[in-house]
Amino acid sequence: MFAGGYWGKILRVNLTTKTFTIEDLPEQVALDFLGGMGFAVNILYNELKPKIDPLSPENKLVVFPGPFTGTNIPCSSRIAFGAKSPQTGTLGVALSGGHFPAEFKFTGFDGLIVEGKSEKPCYILIRDGKVTFRSAKRMWGSTTSDCQIMIKNDLNDHNVRIACIGPAGENMSRMAAIINERRAAGRKGLGAVMGSKNLKAIVVRGNQEVPVANKDSLKTARLSMAKSMKDSPVLYPQFSKLGTAMVVDHLSAMGMFPSNNWKDTGTNSFEDYIGVAKQEELNVGKEHCYGCPVGCTQQIRVNKGPRTGVIGEPEYESFYSLGSTTGIKDVGEIAASDRLCDELGLDTISAGVCVGFAMELAEKGLLDPKLIEGLDLRFGNADAQYELIRRMAFREGIGDLFADGTKEAARRLGGDAWKYAIHVKGLELPAYDGRGAMAHALNYATAFTGADHNRGYAIQEIFGVPVPYPVDRDTIEGKGKLTKWNQDIGTGACDCPTTCAFMLTIAMPGTITESTAALASALTGLKFTSNDIWTIGERVNNLAKAFNSREGFGREDDTLPWRLMNEALQAGLSKGGIITQKMLDAMLDEYYTERGWDLKTSRPTKEKLQALGLDKAAKELWS
Amino acid sequence: MFAGGYWGKILRVNLTTKTFTIEDLPEQVALDFLGGMGFAVNILYNELKPKIDPLSPENKLVVFPGPFTGTNIPCSSRIAFGAKSPQTGTLGVALSGGHFPAEFKFTGFDGLIVEGKSEKPCYILIRDGKVTFRSAKRMWGSTTSDCQIMIKNDLNDHNVRIACIGPAGENMSRMAAIINERRAAGRKGLGAVMGSKNLKAIVVRGNQEVPVANKDSLKTARLSMAKSMKDSPVLYPQFSKLGTAMVVDHLSAMGMFPSNNWKDTGTNSFEDYIGVAKQEELNVGKEHCYGCPVGCTQQIRVNKGPRTGVIGEPEYESFYSLGSTTGIKDVGEIAASDRLCDELGLDTISAGVCVGFAMELAEKGLLDPKLIEGLDLRFGNADAQYELIRRMAFREGIGDLFADGTKEAARRLGGDAWKYAIHVKGLELPAYDGRGAMAHALNYATAFTGADHNRGYAIQEIFGVPVPYPVDRDTIEGKGKLTKWNQDIGTGACDCPTTCAFMLTIAMPGTITESTAALASALTGLKFTSNDIWTIGERVNNLAKAFNSREGFGREDDTLPWRLMNEALQAGLSKGGIITQKMLDAMLDEYYTERGWDLKTSRPTKEKLQALGLDKAAKELWS
Repeated sequence: MFAGGYWGKILRVNLTTKTFTIEDLPEQVALDFLGGMGFAVNILYNELKPKIDPLSPENKLVVFPGPFTGTNIPCSSRIAFGAKSPQTGTLGVALSGGHFPAEFKFTGFDGLIVEGKSEKPCYILIRDGKVTFRSAKRMWGSTTSDCQIMIKNDLNDHNVRIACIGPAGENMSRMAAIINERRAAGRKGLGAVMGSKNLKAIVVRGNQEVPVANKDSLKTARLSMAKSMKDSPVLYPQFSKLGTAMVVDHLSAMGMFPSNNWKDTGTNSFEDYIGVAKQEELNVGKEHCYGCPVGCTQQIRVNKGPRTGVIGEPEYESFYSLGSTTGIKDVGEIAASDRLCDELGLDTISAGVCVGFAMELAEKGLLDPKLIEGLDLRFGNADAQYELIRRMAFREGIGDLFADGTKEAARRLGGDAWKYAIHVKGLELPAYDGRGAMAHALNYATAFTGADHNRGYAIQEIFGVPVPYPVDRDTIEGKGKLTKWNQDIGTGACDCPTTCAFMLTIAMPGTITESTAALASALTGLKFTSNDIWTIGERVNNLAKAFNSREGFGREDDTLPWRLMNEALQAGLSKGGIITQKMLDAMLDEYYTERGWDLKTSRPTKEKLQALGLDKAAKELWS
Repeated sequence: MFAGGYWGKILRVNLTTKTFTIEDLPEQVALDFLGGMGFAVNILYNELKPKIDPLSPENKLVVFPGPFTGTNIPCSSRIAFGAKSPQTGTLGVALSGGHFPAEFKFTGFDGLIVEGKSEKPCYILIRDGKVTFRSAKRMWGSTTSDCQIMIKNDLNDHNVRIACIGPAGENMSRMAAIINERRAAGRKGLGAVMGSKNLKAIVVRGNQEVPVANKDSLKTARLSMAKSMKDSPVLYPQFSKLGTAMVVDHLSAMGMFPSNNWKDTGTNSFEDYIGVAKQEELNVGKEHCYGCPVGCTQQIRVNKGPRTGVIGEPEYESFYSLGSTTGIKDVGEIAASDRLCDELGLDTISAGVCVGFAMELAEKGLLDPKLIEGLDLRFGNADAQYELIRRMAFREGIGDLFADGTKEAARRLGGDAWKYAIHVKGLELPAYDGRGAMAHALNYATAFTGADHNRGYAIQEIFGVPVPYPVDRDTIEGKGKLTKWNQDIGTGACDCPTTCAFMLTIAMPGTITESTAALASALTGLKFTSNDIWTIGERVNNLAKAFNSREGFGREDDTLPWRLMNEALQAGLSKGGIITQKMLDAMLDEYYTERGWDLKTSRPTKEKLQALGLDKAAKELWS
């Protein structure tokens, strides 16, 4: 059916009956949603019944690479996992890199829809065109590393690639991630969805070459993209060598690197202990995703203390969540906690923010001393962090209280605890203090997945990139328009094709929609313009928002943590920063207006939905 | 040159110069030593200068599979590692199973001799007929699991098989093991030899089929062996399901399962806590070595406490060394410590016995309180065991004192500590209390590698197997002859061909030399009789003993730990058991006489050596 980029085949499996069907991918879906996150949102909107329990068999886990995945387009080994999020109740999508995405595509499928619930632990094997269900009885309870080794041995095949859950996913922690090798589709608790289905892993191996419609055009477009990457003053000279952690010092200098559960942002001198130099001291090498010439993953090995020898791969975000926000200053300890999260299958951001939250609650005397059970929950205590992470994954004692994230823990604790819970819609905040950068704050409030830096990252506020125009980070004017711009370009040009978000943020922020359109056209033989890529991004964000609206999310849910709206930054270059309700409302008004959404309910208007061809959503929301 | 079983090629690499040569395997060596341990002993005797420091570049690490390795003969994926042992100063050989041995053979080599010392950390890659040296800078400091993953990623080849060291080997702990996947060539500190050479790993991959001289004869001999295995009342019905741990209850019932550093053997009721039932409760599956229909490795996953989720593969010996001799009663904790030893690259037997030794010293007040540094070194404290193991591997504080084994620790401590050090020639004792079984005691005293249950295991005393004749375990008469029998058959029929020792001890104790001769003849096209297999076993043991004699080992070194000779067993079915010097001397006299060795010096006589064709040794020892 398709000339290139797609196989035209979607695999739908039912875990209850252990059956599967292979469905045709409609060309119109390819044109409207491109792939990856777009396909995920389309299926979830159209197939999930409203108001289902995300951990019930009625939820579906969808897995979609994009047309670029598995080709020789650089940095395209990305894949979107999606489901109704057990952490936020919104539509939940998380993308992951590594080798799994490309290998998935080599199986000859464009996507996977997992329905129902297996009676017993199992894994899905998609190999050489065959689909089988195998027992995961043996792997159930294992760390993600052990699980992957056990599956390889079980199959006597070391070339499979595996996306799996750890004990956290099995125990349905709403912060559970899906791990392939050491890469994570970390956020929104999609690992818990796998756990709820008794699905330990998805295992893929294939040898089919992704078809290309026009090889000459693809080569031209690909070389053009490679040149943009090469010309970037940051991508190879800095990012390739230092990874995302290169941003730590910068954000710290800006007074926006959150510390001690966001109460002390701007007061600490992070250059002293988690700067680039310290990372380099412990660095033992880097890893590349399939087909990536950059290799941003930096490996750090602990060189002292009880976790000596452990290797972690902490990103910028983990330096924050397992470092600054819990007061841990030792890079090795951050790496060790990062590894533990990967092994147990916990999202590092949410897990770390939970630890910081617990530490502040303990400091304020808001936790039952009996519950703390000898844990010395002080900011900066790496041993306590390590042990609390473990208990969360296994739901042991106090771990059970925090296993579902800060929102749920605050709900169970009652009282004032909610004030210190750093989340939006249940998703813990990433490492940019929105009090110093207004588009960041607005994006946290409005991203359809909750506080998610991967949905509409405002690079303009952080690095002064003047695209589409220069902005001041501390002003609210224009941030509605900018946030829409960032959300749509990220969706259309990265999360749908799929390519790595760093192409957008670091290598080619201004030109990526052109590049994406050229690549997609050459690859598929369909016609995509730069404008189409923009529209796809907008369409996906509207349909995802419609999903959330249908679930009951309204304007009042597009908000921010109490702390950001009530406690100003006390020191540093962003001193005094705060986002009052009035400021937020002004930004929301602009944002909704730009989006063509209803100011009162925040719902996409009927006209907007119809203009995007989303007639079903228009009907469901406005009839 | 050879019709089958051998490639006729030995690879000799020099790490100092990063060069290699390929040498012909002389046919006479194949006839005289068969392969595996035989080849290792032959090379080490002939090529090592006497009295060298085992951790100097002058030592050589040799790696020898046998003619059976990599063929379809069941249970033949075994390989011998050898060097002058840094732990004992004797000739040191340790065998390992897994997939590495077969894969080694598939490279087209019959063996590897590693000389010199690399300036920087490196690994040797033998793949597709090519030999290369690669940097191990990145892997240095890593656990064995991480190291193996890093090397696979480094090569972008997941089908290589890897034998490597952990931090313990790098830090030249004299108890360091060589690990492939989770299999260990555990004993005699050969991991430290790799560490001393800056050699992190040996990596192999090949696709050559081992040649067979006479396929029809091989099939006949192989089916005959398979039938013997099938007919065994123990091998499949019990051993395959329970692994070596099935012996725990038996030895415990006999009052011979050593507990609390051998001071309380016979007093504990081990059925209560480390019996088969408890193991089965936590069992999550089993692993097979290449081509093994049995699969004795049982995986146990911790289900409570701080190490929940960790998978270990404790053998019978680890149930002792990391369990009964340190007073640990929790099977999960034993498994966790076992895993830690594998990850850090420590021999589980020696490491555990060291921990028990440390616990007794602490109990007796023989350790400097400052040195214990907050470790609560009580028998039964799993946390202390776990942490002490870690410190030994990294030589941290008290860990450095015990990192080289009980003998060296006792030497450094002085005073009475030596009395509680449970070793022979520096090698810690395995899990059969010789006070209840005299051939075991004699074997510990005389095995050329120190106290080693793999050299002359007296199955007759444990399971009443009447081969070659019935014996009483508590009598000394006839034990000299029996020990020679056991040592020679184990060497000739298992460690040289190579096949798994369990074929000898469990499946076919009385017939294995016939089987081995038939298989070896069919495979190689050379002529081997059952008697030849016996002679090969005898020759190897004599040449190894000659090595030790040349190093200065005499009759006085063929001894036992003070405790076994001075403290009788106080309870249980072996109550009263002890081995006095007089008893030991009587057994040694019989043993040396049976062996044709000089009673005074314990040296093999000139006549014996000459009769075995070991003229060089005859000349060196007696001129």
